[in-house]
Amino acid sequence: MNPSIYCLNGPNLNLLGQREPEIYGRATLDDVAEICRAECDRLGFLLEFRQTNHEGVLIDWVQESRGGAALVINAGGYTHTSVALHDALRTLTIPIIEVHLSNPSAREAFRGTNFVAPAASGSISGFGAFGYHIAIQAAAQLCRRVE
Amino acid sequence: MNPSIYCLNGPNLNLLGQREPEIYGRATLDDVAEICRAECDRLGFLLEFRQTNHEGVLIDWVQESRGGAALVINAGGYTHTSVALHDALRTLTIPIIEVHLSNPSAREAFRGTNFVAPAASGSISGFGAFGYHIAIQAAAQLCRRVE
Amino acid sequence: MNPSIYCLNGPNLNLLGQREPEIYGRATLDDVAEICRAECDRLGFLLEFRQTNHEGVLIDWVQESRGGAALVINAGGYTHTSVALHDALRTLTIPIIEVHLSNPSAREAFRGTNFVAPAASGSISGFGAFGYHIAIQAAAQLCRRVE
Amino acid sequence: MNPSIYCLNGPNLNLLGQREPEIYGRATLDDVAEICRAECDRLGFLLEFRQTNHEGVLIDWVQESRGGAALVINAGGYTHTSVALHDALRTLTIPIIEVHLSNPSAREAFRGTNFVAPAASGSISGFGAFGYHIAIQAAAQLCRRVE
Amino acid sequence: MNPSIYCLNGPNLNLLGQREPEIYGRATLDDVAEICRAECDRLGFLLEFRQTNHEGVLIDWVQESRGGAALVINAGGYTHTSVALHDALRTLTIPIIEVHLSNPSAREAFRGTNFVAPAASGSISGFGAFGYHIAIQAAAQLCRRVE
Amino acid sequence: MNPSIYCLNGPNLNLLGQREPEIYGRATLDDVAEICRAECDRLGFLLEFRQTNHEGVLIDWVQESRGGAALVINAGGYTHTSVALHDALRTLTIPIIEVHLSNPSAREAFRGTNFVAPAASGSISGFGAFGYHIAIQAAAQLCRRVE
Amino acid sequence: MNPSIYCLNGPNLNLLGQREPEIYGRATLDDVAEICRAECDRLGFLLEFRQTNHEGVLIDWVQESRGGAALVINAGGYTHTSVALHDALRTLTIPIIEVHLSNPSAREAFRGTNFVAPAASGSISGFGAFGYHIAIQAAAQLCRRVE
Amino acid sequence: MNPSIYCLNGPNLNLLGQREPEIYGRATLDDVAEICRAECDRLGFLLEFRQTNHEGVLIDWVQESRGGAALVINAGGYTHTSVALHDALRTLTIPIIEVHLSNPSAREAFRGTNFVAPAASGSISGFGAFGYHIAIQAAAQLCRRVE
Amino acid sequence: MNPSIYCLNGPNLNLLGQREPEIYGRATLDDVAEICRAECDRLGFLLEFRQTNHEGVLIDWVQESRGGAALVINAGGYTHTSVALHDALRTLTIPIIEVHLSNPSAREAFRGTNFVAPAASGSISGFGAFGYHIAIQAAAQLCRRVE
Amino acid sequence: MNPSIYCLNGPNLNLLGQREPEIYGRATLDDVAEICRAECDRLGFLLEFRQTNHEGVLIDWVQESRGGAALVINAGGYTHTSVALHDALRTLTIPIIEVHLSNPSAREAFRGTNFVAPAASGSISGFGAFGYHIAIQAAAQLCRRVE
Amino acid sequence: MNPSIYCLNGPNLNLLGQREPEIYGRATLDDVAEICRAECDRLGFLLEFRQTNHEGVLIDWVQESRGGAALVINAGGYTHTSVALHDALRTLTIPIIEVHLSNPSAREAFRGTNFVAPAASGSISGFGAFGYHIAIQAAAQLCRRVE
Amino acid sequence: MNPSIYCLNGPNLNLLGQREPEIYGRATLDDVAEICRAECDRLGFLLEFRQTNHEGVLIDWVQESRGGAALVINAGGYTHTSVALHDALRTLTIPIIEVHLSNPSAREAFRGTNFVAPAASGSISGFGAFGYHIAIQAAAQLCRRVE
Repeated sequence: MNPSIYCLNGPNLNLLGQREPEIYGRATLDDVAEICRAECDRLGFLLEFRQTNHEGVLIDWVQESRGGAALVINAGGYTHTSVALHDALRTLTIPIIEVHLSNPSAREAFRGTNFVAPAASGSISGFGAFGYHIAIQAAAQLCRRVE
Repeated sequence: MNPSIYCLNGPNLNLLGQREPEIYGRATLDDVAEICRAECDRLGFLLEFRQTNHEGVLIDWVQESRGGAALVINAGGYTHTSVALHDALRTLTIPIIEVHLSNPSAREAFRGTNFVAPAASGSISGFGAFGYHIAIQAAAQLCRRVE
Repeated sequence: MNPSIYCLNGPNLNLLGQREPEIYGRATLDDVAEICRAECDRLGFLLEFRQTNHEGVLIDWVQESRGGAALVINAGGYTHTSVALHDALRTLTIPIIEVHLSNPSAREAFRGTNFVAPAASGSISGFGAFGYHIAIQAAAQLCRRVE
Repeated sequence: MNPSIYCLNGPNLNLLGQREPEIYGRATLDDVAEICRAECDRLGFLLEFRQTNHEGVLIDWVQESRGGAALVINAGGYTHTSVALHDALRTLTIPIIEVHLSNPSAREAFRGTNFVAPAASGSISGFGAFGYHIAIQAAAQLCRRVE
Repeated sequence: MNPSIYCLNGPNLNLLGQREPEIYGRATLDDVAEICRAECDRLGFLLEFRQTNHEGVLIDWVQESRGGAALVINAGGYTHTSVALHDALRTLTIPIIEVHLSNPSAREAFRGTNFVAPAASGSISGFGAFGYHIAIQAAAQLCRRVE
Repeated sequence: MNPSIYCLNGPNLNLLGQREPEIYGRATLDDVAEICRAECDRLGFLLEFRQTNHEGVLIDWVQESRGGAALVINAGGYTHTSVALHDALRTLTIPIIEVHLSNPSAREAFRGTNFVAPAASGSISGFGAFGYHIAIQAAAQLCRRVE
Repeated sequence: MNPSIYCLNGPNLNLLGQREPEIYGRATLDDVAEICRAECDRLGFLLEFRQTNHEGVLIDWVQESRGGAALVINAGGYTHTSVALHDALRTLTIPIIEVHLSNPSAREAFRGTNFVAPAASGSISGFGAFGYHIAIQAAAQLCRRVE
Repeated sequence: MNPSIYCLNGPNLNLLGQREPEIYGRATLDDVAEICRAECDRLGFLLEFRQTNHEGVLIDWVQESRGGAALVINAGGYTHTSVALHDALRTLTIPIIEVHLSNPSAREAFRGTNFVAPAASGSISGFGAFGYHIAIQAAAQLCRRVE
Repeated sequence: MNPSIYCLNGPNLNLLGQREPEIYGRATLDDVAEICRAECDRLGFLLEFRQTNHEGVLIDWVQESRGGAALVINAGGYTHTSVALHDALRTLTIPIIEVHLSNPSAREAFRGTNFVAPAASGSISGFGAFGYHIAIQAAAQLCRRVE
Repeated sequence: MNPSIYCLNGPNLNLLGQREPEIYGRATLDDVAEICRAECDRLGFLLEFRQTNHEGVLIDWVQESRGGAALVINAGGYTHTSVALHDALRTLTIPIIEVHLSNPSAREAFRGTNFVAPAASGSISGFGAFGYHIAIQAAAQLCRRVE
Repeated sequence: MNPSIYCLNGPNLNLLGQREPEIYGRATLDDVAEICRAECDRLGFLLEFRQTNHEGVLIDWVQESRGGAALVINAGGYTHTSVALHDALRTLTIPIIEVHLSNPSAREAFRGTNFVAPAASGSISGFGAFGYHIAIQAAAQLCRRVE
Repeated sequence: MNPSIYCLNGPNLNLLGQREPEIYGRATLDDVAEICRAECDRLGFLLEFRQTNHEGVLIDWVQESRGGAALVINAGGYTHTSVALHDALRTLTIPIIEVHLSNPSAREAFRGTNFVAPAASGSISGFGAFGYHIAIQAAAQLCRRVE
């Protein structure tokens, strides 16, 4: 069976496409899932795509992703506040790719604190839904390197 | 049917009246609900009154309140730490009124960080249970202004 | 004779309605006085309503308000800089209600320092002229509680 | 019936023994539970031993522990970020003992913020699983002192 | 009638020429007024030149200057502390030119906070009395641009 | 004629003896004036003793004190905020003695900023009304040293 | 003729592959250029690939890139210090993609200041030479969006 | 001969039992020594128990403890200021256990700086004299682990 | 021969008139040079007017200006970062006038650091191209004062 | 027998009169002792006057002063660094008067931290040797108040 | 052939002997070169001695010095601002000796940031031109140690 | 008789050669004394070489060194904390050379505070025992300059 890439999405990403489209773009979370799935298919991976508003659920899923091949994560607002999520990411040995739809450097100062980035292999931000497309590519690339 | 005002209460507010009454007063959360309901009845609104200790549940409810007329929120300790809640509030277009039972300026320094206020229309603090009374009034007033 | 509620207004509030109406609304200070007077009449209080641009005059008046029943204060820019005003408020034993027309959390960082709030019973901000309406209510409510 | 000591464990502690053993040691959470149970038996207490990745659940349980004799808590990453947990702990009158497996002073700067310690009677850190052993002793000792 | 340029001077500027001449130069405030008047005459403006040690009076005058063509202001020590003055300046729509006799960057750290500059069109500092000469020129220039 | 010692008192000191006596003691400002006058008589100085709530008036008086022999000043809350007062003090060449009734180090953090001390010859704090007694002595002592 | 993508590289990137390979990987700058060229060919763009150790030269080239279709930039150490580079980037209207070989969040604190990111459309970091591959893709994607 | 555990106590601990008993408890330093000796006897260790007010003496003793089996240290006020003590502790290879009678997190901000903890194996605080009891246990436990 | 005023311009000023005209105005650098030349002619000075994007070249030119009569400098982005430029300015004994087209106080926080101002005689900012006009005047005025 | 006032002097005060006389004056420590003795004689107190360069000795003496009537202390450089001294002072119940020869507000920033003042009844600084004269007076005055 | 010691000098050092001699001494850069050459001759090294005002050139030369035996560097103002220079130094494996003519600790606060020191083997400052003499000695000594 | 160079060594330097040799090297303090003595002999100075763990003793010795020709000091951990030592050094008029075996810039942040350097003529760090060799040279050189 093909290995799985987990793509986990945090709080408020379920509203994608409805909420502040001038910042986040018009694609919905289903569109994003579709983009990821297409790219996973092309590269020979299964996709586990999920969203939650709950920090604890996100941590449960991160722990579950240990059985996968790579983790693509957009932790939304928890990116800036969750030490517990940071600790969960630190327990993984698979590649971790951080994605953000918008460019946090161009926003509020409190988005300058980031607990995901120091635990991630790499980060991609500011490219809207297309960022997920290249995040899946990068995940695949890093999996190969690890093997 | 009458429009609804959501009144959402965060962590530890279920203990109201039992916990540190010299700070929070002797009214219980049921008393507070009763005050809100009476005022809503008088002003022609339905009331959706809830409490949770879970940040994720609070975010789910804030998202749900998009279908309501206004949101009155006392986010308790999450006021000072939750960027995710801030982001959820930012997705709303209805009036948002922040309430606190006590006066945060007279307490610990870490209560100086506030992620609800910058997303709210206005704030009311320090008046105990009576603060909910005037918060409902203010919510009603702001709804009319928006119409 | 009925007890008095002092409503003291600080610098630049005399320009209300002319100055940055997108922040402060279109009501003039006379409109605000009218709102306060109506509410005081309804609740059985006299109203002492004043405005000054002078920090020292504001302190003189705060000291004078010791003979009143409650103090509603919008100290304008002195809110963020006046330790002397803070000390004057600390000498009062009557209820003190802080009002702001706009929401300071959504404005410049220097409005994050506040010398009125830690000396006040409670604060109301962001509701424009309507905030005075509920401030008078809260003042009346707190007077009763003290009695 | 014997009084209960609650021993509550926060995020990622379910991975104990698998995750970064050079920091956290090789004992699993079951081993830790066993150590606590043995010590509770010896000292005449029941043990309520639990783990969760969810901040809200941890707060629910802290509130529930009000019926117990003492609380031993290792809040993991929430130690450094949760004002809501701090507020929950503040509502307790039973002794609270904070435990950490590793020594936070020797780790990242963000572990310098601590919302559990100021609400706890005392803290024990750096002794791995053995720290729970002496935490139970300290809990028992403090219960006796309170009686 | 010719339009007026207001030139307002804050605390301690009445002592000009007597106080720390190695910092502020030997010209008196009357000399400065003379320089301004000559330049205003040449450029076809009336001059309203005043000095006060009182923050409130300075704010009164700033409000009054709304009827003028431009404002040249040296707020002295209030430059570094007065949010109320800042708010008064924000209510103007005429050009505002900030003047300082000395160079604040070469002095105490507390002169690094400036509440006049962010509300001013432009600033001139370090040129002693001659700075007023070019401030009047700049005021005249900006008036023409606005017309 | 004997030379004068100016003793200037800032905001809220008119309430001395009525306000927070556990911090400021029970002596009134008249008692303090009496203490100062007795000591001045003994040492051969006239006394100019005044109080104001107005920053601008305090600055006017400081400027006026240039004709005196020494300045004893308790600037109250303006101590912590007034750069303008600092600048006025800097213009003096006579000895300046700062007095505080209470010990600012044992109070709020914002009392850690002090604009009077760096311009003063020396400071006396924490001795209540008796502090004025020794401040007059110190003023007399410093006058003699200057002669 | 095909439009050009500028790929500009800052200080010390000429040493790529020789310097700290455990951080930056083993690919040389020529390898990176090759990766970029291949991807540009595939997507129908010309490539302008350059490296310099000089801040001023980098700024000259950024200005020159205004005639191109997009800018991919790895400013090396100037990322963290150059306001002048920031200003140059702000003058562009074409898409700007920031690339870093390593993950700056996992390195020294002074790499937390970033003057490129706030002026960029998006950022990619931590993927070594492969990051340039996806940066070119993202550049192409953003060009199409702009058209 | 049995190995020795050093128990070193810093400044003002000689006053234990007399000084602020609501913070430090009623046990004297002799009582504490007795507790430690009993526990050492039970576990088969000799005890070297000392107190000094002198930083230099404390450093001399820490250096001497290199010949012992473990070090239990309550450095009192030097905990928060002594880099020299920190360096001395860093030269040891035996286990180091930090003890505090009270909970520093609940006290002044300057007790937030700690030069002992980062050099210690673990820390115990807030349990009064009983903390030494479990510190000896922990010391014994860590000695065994090292062997 | 007439003495020379050096007018040195730093990075990105070559784009003047094309770049963000709402901040910097519509005049080009050639227009600015023309303004300066006219004013120099009128006042009897030669003009040395230059622009560079290179910090090192700017420093070379500042050193060269030691042979001139005065220096007018707009260091652009290097104003906020260049200690080396600061040191070069410190070596001059001729008058130095700092110019900025826009008002830095109304822009990003990182423009609050300024390494030119503390080494300059005076500063002029916020008047667009006209600021150079009065800077040349001020330079001439200061030359005369020095003579 | 008359009660004793302890007058304890910290590091480098033995060099008084030889070291930086423009800051500390020309009186030697023997002169200061003489001043204190004369004033103690006049007021009916014995004097215990000592100096040491050793922090530990200073703490020993502070502990010893518990048997005295009052403590006058000039802790020299330890004022700014010694938490251990602060703790020793906190154990006293007799009046504590802090003295400094010079005015610390007019000196280096690191003299802004003060561990003596928050534990003292009052402070006197800037009056040179005469400061000890009034410190003894204040000590006597406070003793009487306590009786 | 003898191995080379590179001695690289940054901005404004070409003015040595002319600029602020009370800080930097009277020796010119040629004198310094002579001192270095004599010492290199004595110790059997060639000397490559250069100066530039350009950060980029300094980086080019640092890269070139990889072929040498050791690097002695006085980066002048770039010491305090250049991350790019820091990165270049990090690529070297030869000994690096930092020299400064004056003592930066006794100067402006912004000289407290240092990007050369953390990449250097050792530092020498405050000895004027003689510092280069001992820097060459130290370079020679470290070369021998590495061999 | 030949003049003396004092070489004073602070806490933990007695352990040199035994403690963390990868940081401090393998030379013992006796080896260092030997190096210093040889160099002093060669240059015609006596050597006073001492070590202590006591801050007060170090200060006593610094005061004693006033009778010497120069002071070479490695204050160990007291470098970073001792204002009292700083004050003692300030009383000297002989040259003061600071030495450190390792490079403090490459170590913990708290070693960034330095109370010796601002009082020293110059500093040498990072060259291990050889640093003392060149420190003696520099001391001799500075003595000659002073003569």
